[in-house]
Amino acid sequence: MSRKYRDGLKKVPANYQPLTPIHLLSRSALVHPERIAIVHGDRRITYKDFYANARRLASALTNHGIKPEDTVSIMAPNIPEFLDAHFGVPMTGAVLNSLNTRLDAKALAFILDHAETDVLLTDTAYSKVIKEALSISSRSPLIIDIDDLLSSGGELLGRLEYKEFLAGGDPEFVWEHPIDEWQAIALNYTSGTTGDPKGVVYSHRGAYLNSLGNQLSWVLGEHPVYLWTLPMFHCNGWCFPWTITATSGTHVCLREVAVNAISAAIINESVTHFCGAPIVLNMILNAEASVLAKLPRGIKAYTAGAPPPSAIIKGMEALGFDITHSYGLTEVYGPCVVSQWKDEWNDRPEDERAALKARQGVRYITQEALDVLDPETMQPVPSDGKTIGEIMFQGNTTMEGYLKNPETTEAAFADGWFHSGDLAVKHPDGYLEIRDRAKDIIISGGENISSVEVEGALYQNPVVLEAAVVAKPHEKWGESPCAFVKLKPEKTATEKEIIDHCRNQLASFKAPKSVVFGELPKTSTGKIQKFVLRERVRNLIVGS
Amino acid sequence: MSRKYRDGLKKVPANYQPLTPIHLLSRSALVHPERIAIVHGDRRITYKDFYANARRLASALTNHGIKPEDTVSIMAPNIPEFLDAHFGVPMTGAVLNSLNTRLDAKALAFILDHAETDVLLTDTAYSKVIKEALSISSRSPLIIDIDDLLSSGGELLGRLEYKEFLAGGDPEFVWEHPIDEWQAIALNYTSGTTGDPKGVVYSHRGAYLNSLGNQLSWVLGEHPVYLWTLPMFHCNGWCFPWTITATSGTHVCLREVAVNAISAAIINESVTHFCGAPIVLNMILNAEASVLAKLPRGIKAYTAGAPPPSAIIKGMEALGFDITHSYGLTEVYGPCVVSQWKDEWNDRPEDERAALKARQGVRYITQEALDVLDPETMQPVPSDGKTIGEIMFQGNTTMEGYLKNPETTEAAFADGWFHSGDLAVKHPDGYLEIRDRAKDIIISGGENISSVEVEGALYQNPVVLEAAVVAKPHEKWGESPCAFVKLKPEKTATEKEIIDHCRNQLASFKAPKSVVFGELPKTSTGKIQKFVLRERVRNLIVGS
Repeated sequence: MSRKYRDGLKKVPANYQPLTPIHLLSRSALVHPERIAIVHGDRRITYKDFYANARRLASALTNHGIKPEDTVSIMAPNIPEFLDAHFGVPMTGAVLNSLNTRLDAKALAFILDHAETDVLLTDTAYSKVIKEALSISSRSPLIIDIDDLLSSGGELLGRLEYKEFLAGGDPEFVWEHPIDEWQAIALNYTSGTTGDPKGVVYSHRGAYLNSLGNQLSWVLGEHPVYLWTLPMFHCNGWCFPWTITATSGTHVCLREVAVNAISAAIINESVTHFCGAPIVLNMILNAEASVLAKLPRGIKAYTAGAPPPSAIIKGMEALGFDITHSYGLTEVYGPCVVSQWKDEWNDRPEDERAALKARQGVRYITQEALDVLDPETMQPVPSDGKTIGEIMFQGNTTMEGYLKNPETTEAAFADGWFHSGDLAVKHPDGYLEIRDRAKDIIISGGENISSVEVEGALYQNPVVLEAAVVAKPHEKWGESPCAFVKLKPEKTATEKEIIDHCRNQLASFKAPKSVVFGELPKTSTGKIQKFVLRERVRNLIVGS
Repeated sequence: MSRKYRDGLKKVPANYQPLTPIHLLSRSALVHPERIAIVHGDRRITYKDFYANARRLASALTNHGIKPEDTVSIMAPNIPEFLDAHFGVPMTGAVLNSLNTRLDAKALAFILDHAETDVLLTDTAYSKVIKEALSISSRSPLIIDIDDLLSSGGELLGRLEYKEFLAGGDPEFVWEHPIDEWQAIALNYTSGTTGDPKGVVYSHRGAYLNSLGNQLSWVLGEHPVYLWTLPMFHCNGWCFPWTITATSGTHVCLREVAVNAISAAIINESVTHFCGAPIVLNMILNAEASVLAKLPRGIKAYTAGAPPPSAIIKGMEALGFDITHSYGLTEVYGPCVVSQWKDEWNDRPEDERAALKARQGVRYITQEALDVLDPETMQPVPSDGKTIGEIMFQGNTTMEGYLKNPETTEAAFADGWFHSGDLAVKHPDGYLEIRDRAKDIIISGGENISSVEVEGALYQNPVVLEAAVVAKPHEKWGESPCAFVKLKPEKTATEKEIIDHCRNQLASFKAPKSVVFGELPKTSTGKIQKFVLRERVRNLIVGS
């Protein structure tokens, strides 16, 4: 074979640079130095200053001995310092480890130890739990307290406050490119439902590509005004710290995700876009009419996470929100699948539109392969909208693996695909629809019942605020669906009314056999904790 | 150093796939199978069929022995088969070599020999020059004639016609990913003004990234209807065969770039976007009023190439076109610099807006570095809008190098940067503005005169249709500017009137000392051939 396309055509600095999202900030600072990059209460930070702050952070960290492949952990709500960290930490070559702010001290200590944290940035609001975590952990990281003006207090744990720390940094610090685009940029622990949390490692390459993927899939254009309703600690805020910066948009920070704060920010800052788990949409949907009446129409919301029942999508669109539904997992950098809308669906009846949009959809341009495979044979399931298989991914926005966990990494990547653990069907048009997490499927009399499908039926009932369905052991059928339901304020329902409602919507074997009313336990990202419900079911049985 | 971020975090098929634009077509075929991908006269080709045709082509080429790193050359206008080739050829691992349709037989033979062409796809309209080229060349490629229904005739040169060839291919051909994203995807010969053409090699990685870069920089959104006014042979149509496919848009083909054909296509196909060298804009600008009156407003045009005088931008915008000005070279995959518009400029006076837009601008998100450096010291010039340096690039959308030309490649990449040969200033806001090609600068009495600046002044004169300025040897000053001018139909002007006009616009030493009226020689991409004008100047002097 001729070697003409190889000889003398080498990678050199002029034609090959490691992909990294850091470039997205340096570009916005060059092109739009005076545009507002970050809003936080009364603070307004331009792109020029955002870039300078990130460089100051990188410089100060470097001065304190931080070097490539060290770990910088952060415990903070959605504040400007968290955005600084998304650029300043990688500028040093170190890895950003975002801590879930709802974890308890023991889980946090596990993460600090496992991540081998060298520096900990910590917002004073979390000083109590962090202090306890540090007392359990064997690490003694450099502690930098973030004393945010909008915080409700707390204690300084270290000798350095963030503003002082930054003041010691050089705003013109010459940051280093990653040596290799495969270098780690972030470490995110999954809030696993069983066992120790697993540390998902992202690369500069993947973070860059998914940042562009978000921009293309949501057709963001230039200068969106983006409200931070999604936790930045969750898959690096689905990569949106990098995505919004790429668009030279405005990050509107938000310490607490509550309806009044969201509504005030939307109105005061002319917000155009936000992301959130379905639980955030549901919170807005169930806000008081007086709050909803003030919100402008046409705000774009991107949702992913737990499959959102089509009733939530329909409700939000009726309020004038423009919903884009996507899907992903921590292991694939947040969303990398999108329920891409087709113009020809605009004329369909409202219910059908909501049902189409509730499907998970198709791969991002920046994820190379997505399919539903039979995990036994690794063959694709037929595109019949019925046969259930496991969602699997191949491509550049799949994690590098789990930190210090080669066995689990290898298992997750068996047979050349990342196994998501989510069960789905493939429709004749190629769009995926989740039926369940592998462990959430209910097998009753040999028939599979999708808990997601039953939950969808429950949400169609106007008295239901939140619902979750899990398997309950059943003598005759093996398992039967048990529904947990939180009613809307001042609404009432009996177990029989709920079951009858489901029987009207579903094949009757799929209807719940029992209903439990009350609050539902949730993770910090708003997912209902089904493992807690399963324990309750076990206790119900033991108790009965 | 801890190796925790290295050990057990390897590249495997689940988390690493070579970047390639081929995926852009497979995705559009999956998501929008029934959308119209290509329009050509009365033909309408859906995405499903476009993908099937590309796979048929790949399959048929493979059946004929084509293997990775072979060369497939194509001589064609902007027709569907050329789009097929942009995907079908790389699917085999081979390299697409697009031939400039305006080259003569000798130049074409040089390219076929140098590229070591294995297959030649050739539109019958070019059978005469190709036949002659083949008689000169030492290669005997497999010839596939494209007998387009809209072609004006010509001869079949081989034994296979494209449609038959395709019929022998498998529409479900399982294409191979490139082994490595650094693998070559395209080979484009620069229409060099001196010496033999140089073969610029593009990689799958660069082509993928610049395809997304176009999409982001022009904010294309979904489903643009794109008119093919730019030759596909020119830097792979600036990567737009891949870009428009990524957006699931519609490619509207066009065999001839003429005002009536453009206007008919815009109206009949509801075109929303097109690209073109300034010469194409100028052609539209000078069309008959009756033609212009029929065109809708708001059509988006992307222009790059020769610096477009602000007068052309102003004129096009006055007609209702929305112009985005970009800049690039064959060596950087076409455009990778864009004169990114800022909202705050909307209120500026018309002339100032046009002048701002006429600047070349800032780097794409997908090109990592762009600067104006002093080529002697390799230091950046000050951002003063005055000091001239050379435009240089670093990043992933710079070519791999020149084929079989390691010395020239090394020289182009000296000191870690790609040297563009274009001279520019950097304005205080960081935007670049071209002053000249290195060889086009005029040095008069020790002062640099930008031929581009003098041409800009000439275009401000309402009688001038086209203008170019080159250096003329001058006894006293060393060099002086000599203007070549083509007047608009039925307009007249004297040499003195033209010189006086320039003296009113420029420092008087910059005004041309002589003016030559008549047709201007152009390259196939509409660039005025200054080297021809320089020869004329030499002849004028010899003759005088």
